[in-house]
Amino acid sequence: MPLSLPEIKRPDRAILVLLQKHLDNLTKPPGSLGRLEELARNFGLMRGSTDLILQKRAIFTFAADHGVSRAGVSAYPREVTAQMVFNFIRGGAAINVLCRHYGIQNVVVDAGVDYDFPELAGLVSRKVGRGTENLLEGPAMTVEQAMQTIEAGMDLAQGYDLVGTGDMGIGNTTSSAAVCAVFTGLPVEEVVGRGTGIDDDRLRHKTKVIRDALARHKPEASNALDVLAKVGGFEIGAIAGLILGAASRRIPVVVDGFISGAGAMIATHLEPACRDYLFFSHMSRERGHRRMLEFFDARPILDLDMCLGEGTGAALAMDVITAAVRVYNEMATFDSASVSRS
Amino acid sequence: MPLSLPEIKRPDRAILVLLQKHLDNLTKPPGSLGRLEELARNFGLMRGSTDLILQKRAIFTFAADHGVSRAGVSAYPREVTAQMVFNFIRGGAAINVLCRHYGIQNVVVDAGVDYDFPELAGLVSRKVGRGTENLLEGPAMTVEQAMQTIEAGMDLAQGYDLVGTGDMGIGNTTSSAAVCAVFTGLPVEEVVGRGTGIDDDRLRHKTKVIRDALARHKPEASNALDVLAKVGGFEIGAIAGLILGAASRRIPVVVDGFISGAGAMIATHLEPACRDYLFFSHMSRERGHRRMLEFFDARPILDLDMCLGEGTGAALAMDVITAAVRVYNEMATFDSASVSRS
Repeated sequence: MPLSLPEIKRPDRAILVLLQKHLDNLTKPPGSLGRLEELARNFGLMRGSTDLILQKRAIFTFAADHGVSRAGVSAYPREVTAQMVFNFIRGGAAINVLCRHYGIQNVVVDAGVDYDFPELAGLVSRKVGRGTENLLEGPAMTVEQAMQTIEAGMDLAQGYDLVGTGDMGIGNTTSSAAVCAVFTGLPVEEVVGRGTGIDDDRLRHKTKVIRDALARHKPEASNALDVLAKVGGFEIGAIAGLILGAASRRIPVVVDGFISGAGAMIATHLEPACRDYLFFSHMSRERGHRRMLEFFDARPILDLDMCLGEGTGAALAMDVITAAVRVYNEMATFDSASVSRS
Repeated sequence: MPLSLPEIKRPDRAILVLLQKHLDNLTKPPGSLGRLEELARNFGLMRGSTDLILQKRAIFTFAADHGVSRAGVSAYPREVTAQMVFNFIRGGAAINVLCRHYGIQNVVVDAGVDYDFPELAGLVSRKVGRGTENLLEGPAMTVEQAMQTIEAGMDLAQGYDLVGTGDMGIGNTTSSAAVCAVFTGLPVEEVVGRGTGIDDDRLRHKTKVIRDALARHKPEASNALDVLAKVGGFEIGAIAGLILGAASRRIPVVVDGFISGAGAMIATHLEPACRDYLFFSHMSRERGHRRMLEFFDARPILDLDMCLGEGTGAALAMDVITAAVRVYNEMATFDSASVSRS
């Protein structure tokens, strides 16, 4: 059975004139709020409306394990993925603090952690497996699992005005760098980075692992499911699914950093129209992220040297978008405030 | 009577080790929150404590008129300064929306608007005069007025954990560019910008106005009061005063954009130690701001192409600092969350 993708309509750009006209009536020199104006305008474009409503916001943090984490590519042991899921549930991780600060809902999704969680309030189970296979030895997952993981994310974004992506998975910068190398065609050493903080020796090893995996599997850039299956991860596929599902409902998506970017690469290869519903939150310090953003021709909203994942960059950027929408909605106009124009 | 400046103690950098140690115990790879970690650390350094309390926050928006606004340097008529003060009081300006969004107090200060305001709830009167003189014809203010305007800002930051600066004043990018040219020694054309959006012809005229004023007055970079008096503005002096007063109480200051930067230049020339209490909020689109940040050797927190003033950049950055402090205060440690270390 082939993967069934939802229809995604490209936004009608005619509305941009109306959105800009409203922005230019507000009591400020035209364009002086810079990217805040751009963000409000693009939010309206994606929603297809000049009435901007931005109330219900969520960050989806997808957790999964990776077979390649057994190949010595990470600074942290594999167990940390499950341990961090418990930390998310108890509210002790960075993404929890940021979501509390901004009043954003955080949804933690088990996309394939190597741990049998009990029923936990706040944990959504979309488990595809107990971690992927080691991509050094064989494909990370079957094509059927690749479809399953995309479908796992597809229905999650419902009833929201804006959603963000996030990830947790020891080993997942290895997988994401492989995905990035395939789609950009760049040499592995240009897109591989230090992840959670590996030293030079381990970085060389990680680079070799990815290079060997790509040489062995030869994933086809023209076939995103093939790429996902051979070198991807369950959380990466679920992020792609979340993006596709959200875009089909005209819900804009704030893409976090490097791992979320790999998910966005899968999504845009499956359905290019979803690109029109993406905000790119920040420039990660992870080495390959700059090239990934170039691939999307995206200028990120923030550049704060972060590289944690979880959706932390998405949370910060989501609130900048929210501030922009409030400016659009709440500022006085020149007429209403009796302020002279230029 | 000479200007009496408060004593400013340099922070004791020994505390940085303790602040970093706490950050490294939190459940994230060391340094992975990038500038958020830096902001929390610097906030603790400025406050002189590892217990970070960040509750009471305010942005001070100083409004004043400029004699040079009669010289055709701005896109907007002079009346807009007073009209915007009314807009601030009614809550219709961008700074109001942003402060509401973040729960930041906004204090509007009349430092010298050319309008006799009635008693208005929410307007603090520290009026030094009804606008400065035209710096093309004579000094913008007397040295006595320059001292008075600094004192006007000095006692405002009391009882806050963090304050931000802001400005409103038609003509004040002209004055700020002049201040910037004096202190950096750069040619006027490198620090002058389009302000509220002037065209090429008016930009050439504005550049000539500043060049002529500097040639006529020869302000001495070694004498900040002389610079303020000859080419400054009442709001610029009051911003300098706010910074000096806040720093003397170890209250960190979030500096907004180009006009606030001119105020910070005056403040740091009067008392270099106040530099240690400054956060630079954003990279303004106003041309000279990049050179100003270079002068301070500062990397701004945000870069959103904004150039509105009012404190809008400071408000956005202030909330990033607040998020950073919450992360410092609320994240679980590796031990408390039973997460394995690398």
